[in-house]
Amino acid sequence: MASPAQAPSRIPELRHDPVTNRWVIFSPARAKRPSDFKSKTPQSANPSSESCPFCGGREHDCAPEIFRVPPDSANPNWKIRVIENLYPALSRNVAVPDGEIGCPGRVLGGFGYHDVVIETPIHSVQLCDMEGREIGEVLLAYKLRIEQIMRCEFIKYVQVFKNHGASAGASFSHSHSQILALPIIPPSVSLRLEGSKEHFDKTGKCNLCEALGEELVIDKTAHFISIVPFAATYPFEIWIVPLDHCPHFHELDHHRAVDLGGLLRLMLNKISIQLNYPPFNFMIQTSPLQVKDSQLPYAHWYLQIVPQLSGLGGFEIGSGCYINPVFPEDAVKVLRDVNLPVEQ
Amino acid sequence: MASPAQAPSRIPELRHDPVTNRWVIFSPARAKRPSDFKSKTPQSANPSSESCPFCGGREHDCAPEIFRVPPDSANPNWKIRVIENLYPALSRNVAVPDGEIGCPGRVLGGFGYHDVVIETPIHSVQLCDMEGREIGEVLLAYKLRIEQIMRCEFIKYVQVFKNHGASAGASFSHSHSQILALPIIPPSVSLRLEGSKEHFDKTGKCNLCEALGEELVIDKTAHFISIVPFAATYPFEIWIVPLDHCPHFHELDHHRAVDLGGLLRLMLNKISIQLNYPPFNFMIQTSPLQVKDSQLPYAHWYLQIVPQLSGLGGFEIGSGCYINPVFPEDAVKVLRDVNLPVEQ
Repeated sequence: MASPAQAPSRIPELRHDPVTNRWVIFSPARAKRPSDFKSKTPQSANPSSESCPFCGGREHDCAPEIFRVPPDSANPNWKIRVIENLYPALSRNVAVPDGEIGCPGRVLGGFGYHDVVIETPIHSVQLCDMEGREIGEVLLAYKLRIEQIMRCEFIKYVQVFKNHGASAGASFSHSHSQILALPIIPPSVSLRLEGSKEHFDKTGKCNLCEALGEELVIDKTAHFISIVPFAATYPFEIWIVPLDHCPHFHELDHHRAVDLGGLLRLMLNKISIQLNYPPFNFMIQTSPLQVKDSQLPYAHWYLQIVPQLSGLGGFEIGSGCYINPVFPEDAVKVLRDVNLPVEQ
Repeated sequence: MASPAQAPSRIPELRHDPVTNRWVIFSPARAKRPSDFKSKTPQSANPSSESCPFCGGREHDCAPEIFRVPPDSANPNWKIRVIENLYPALSRNVAVPDGEIGCPGRVLGGFGYHDVVIETPIHSVQLCDMEGREIGEVLLAYKLRIEQIMRCEFIKYVQVFKNHGASAGASFSHSHSQILALPIIPPSVSLRLEGSKEHFDKTGKCNLCEALGEELVIDKTAHFISIVPFAATYPFEIWIVPLDHCPHFHELDHHRAVDLGGLLRLMLNKISIQLNYPPFNFMIQTSPLQVKDSQLPYAHWYLQIVPQLSGLGGFEIGSGCYINPVFPEDAVKVLRDVNLPVEQ
């Protein structure tokens, strides 16, 4: 908690993010020095791999495989495996994918796909230890799986996400991410698209393309830029945004995937160094499937990284409004202030 | 994690809550037995009160007092104190309450009130230890403070909330709640009201009045009913709803406050007993201020209780969609299965 000696000079502000379409409270009175945000629960070396079903050689302990990279199911030297989740939130076996059960409009059968991407066969390797090129291959595995899933017309949206560390929701320490394909468009996506569309209808411009002109840039590559959004919901939240307007993540090509892999690696290493290896989540914020790019001139995909530095309380749960104690202008300084190259 | 021997018989479902206007995923494959949901971080007796500024006799260690109950600022034998928050998220001292700073429509001065309600002078007493009548007095302190705050025309919404336990966001173990008065209507409230209005426009009925006819009732008093909502966002989430249609919490009278106090006490004791004294939040879900009841025939306030049993992951952060592993039909059984009387 701030002591009076560190009394902040700023006054609190509410900022509206045109992309997420949300107001966020920035509260200097609740701010600590950036160093006070260092994680209290750093993610150190992985615990024992003895019982880990994601390790190479343990393939038979897992739910069925969907594909592996390289694409030879007999090759024991795989680099990435996409498998079914043994405890899926939604089921690919629900008979009537779009069927309503009981009260009309209130209950839908839980049809969907819930997959796991094992990012490496080696237990001790985390995503940020991998080369940009290797992370690019993980991103291309997401892309390939989305392209398979979108053939099913009942899937409206695919949420790709990674939970790293127990307090960020990870049940396994072996490096992995998840793909959850939904028969609905989730609320944050609807809110984001409504806001973007409103802006586009008024100005003829994509609001994320516009935001890239602002000053809160951390790093930039040939095809991507990493920023702290002006109205970041969470302290030290980072977005990696393609420089060229593009609604759907799954249009990523090989060249751009490697480029993005390098920048993602850099951002993960920066938060590790500056925030003491915090648990984190990343999420791919893309557009609904079954909608063509030409119908989405206002939608621009991005990758959102959220270090888990503080939990939620009753205010956030009740109101859906967030309090961020770190002004983005301060967060971006901390993230710029690490001398690491983009490596691929 | 569920073992194959406990394979669930239900299939996953998506349920839409007409009140919160959200889809929730109910996922039996991720379900555990209700006993597995018992909190791993129970809130035991309070730690030392030596340095606690909320204790009786320590009034000078706190931020300024707004009022105390009974209303005599010289009475050392107070029961409840409402004080300013020493580290407020919003400031009552921002000069231009509705002024836009910088980019139009994107930044607002952080004007607002952020107060703390100290529910008892005694460090070792928690809300659920108090009598229904005493809890009723805390609820009436919320009401009085809201009535004071709403005289300021710039305040659009007041969020009353309680964080109990460190992992539910409480910085102090001494029993307290918070009142945060906002110059905007927060997103969850807008979403809720849009959904309720749409339902009312279609059917001429309040959707919460209608939901009270459903079967997921835990307990009932003369004026209130406690339910597990049919599409509960969180496992073992409880709503306490006034039986008579009413948009604003702050219209609570003394008689109803005591009645509500008894039911709130019962619910807090039920989750304590059945879920091993979990950290929890409660939030009052009311209607925007500056709007008359007659203009809100579709809005019905309620008190939401959320035991903190599991954290959020990247899926929830990214999509705003929640996965609830406990079907409300199962949660309500667990909460009915405690033989405690409503005491006042």
